Amino acid sequence: MSKFVDQPLSAFLDALASAEPTPGGGTAAAIAGAMGVSLLMMVGGLSKSRAGAETERVDLAEARAALASIRDRLAGLGDTDAEAFNQVMAAYRLPKSTDQEKSARKDAIQQGLKAASIAPLDTLRAAGEALRLARVVAQHGNRSAVSDVAVGIGLLEAAAKGAAANVRINLESLLDEGFKASASADVDAIDKQLREDAAAANATLQGN
Amino acid sequence: MSKFVDQPLSAFLDALASAEPTPGGGTAAAIAGAMGVSLLMMVGGLSKSRAGAETERVDLAEARAALASIRDRLAGLGDTDAEAFNQVMAAYRLPKSTDQEKSARKDAIQQGLKAASIAPLDTLRAAGEALRLARVVAQHGNRSAVSDVAVGIGLLEAAAKGAAANVRINLESLLDEGFKASASADVDAIDKQLREDAAAANATLQGN
Repeated sequence: MSKFVDQPLSAFLDALASAEPTPGGGTAAAIAGAMGVSLLMMVGGLSKSRAGAETERVDLAEARAALASIRDRLAGLGDTDAEAFNQVMAAYRLPKSTDQEKSARKDAIQQGLKAASIAPLDTLRAAGEALRLARVVAQHGNRSAVSDVAVGIGLLEAAAKGAAANVRINLESLLDEGFKASASADVDAIDKQLREDAAAANATLQGN
Repeated sequence: MSKFVDQPLSAFLDALASAEPTPGGGTAAAIAGAMGVSLLMMVGGLSKSRAGAETERVDLAEARAALASIRDRLAGLGDTDAEAFNQVMAAYRLPKSTDQEKSARKDAIQQGLKAASIAPLDTLRAAGEALRLARVVAQHGNRSAVSDVAVGIGLLEAAAKGAAANVRINLESLLDEGFKASASADVDAIDKQLREDAAAANATLQGN
């Protein structure tokens, strides 16, 4: 499958808009997250002042490097999400004439749904890590870029919310109760933590 | 200036992440809005059921066509926003040795700041129109795409919030009090309306 980030942005928008089920909300959430991280990276390259303490500049540079790695993960998760959903749909199209076929199809659907839950869970996790770093950027980044940081945080929150919705909807049809409970607990914990981190970053931004 | 939507998505992300001031949050908000609209367009192409009433299908098709037009505006606003901000920065670099130069520079800065306020205001307005149509999509769109609609609404809300922040910050340095008051009132009114429309669309989605 072609990587979405290699396509022209207009082609990506057209792919989202087409009636084909992929790319859909899961991919859009991952790419929106990558956009939010990019804005934080931009401000991570603009320190508050030339007179800023050396430790502040080091903190900002470290945050920027970590954000770059998170952005690459999110860009790749745009593809992973679409591939997982394609796998689910392919499983639903498997033959179901005999008992063996029915059993194999059921297993394939369950396997696909697990992959389709893991991809947005990874997006949620990446957005959470970026929002934790947003506070450093909000604190040490240049004041002229306050609205860029705010937009970056907002896009990451939207990405996280969308990813969490996608995990929850894909868990619904899963039969493996252990997997469901574990993934569901992960979503709740990451979601709670990232809301706190986003609020802290926004509060720091107001005080910058 | 090259159109951002003609670039590969990876190049757009790199441009956002670079320390260059444009593209920044205003452009990211417009493009995130275009992504949200694209998801609504996708679901606008998937009616609820084959047995759905003819009027529902017509409503959905009309919403999809209107959304396509809004998406084109948002994609273009990604460029307009960056151009306006470049105009502001160019104005700040104008010479200021003589009184005439100082006066001309001041006028150019003010003109640039107006353009840099109008672009995100247009983004906010477009996001508001899309969120109004989101309710139709939430009501008549296929239930299997519920999470796609939710992500679309979330991206449009983030785009609107980011655009509103950009209008407000660019209005701060404006001296034309009439323009400031009028633009500020527009932001408040559109923001209020779109929050109501987003809440209504989300409520409809829950009930679908």
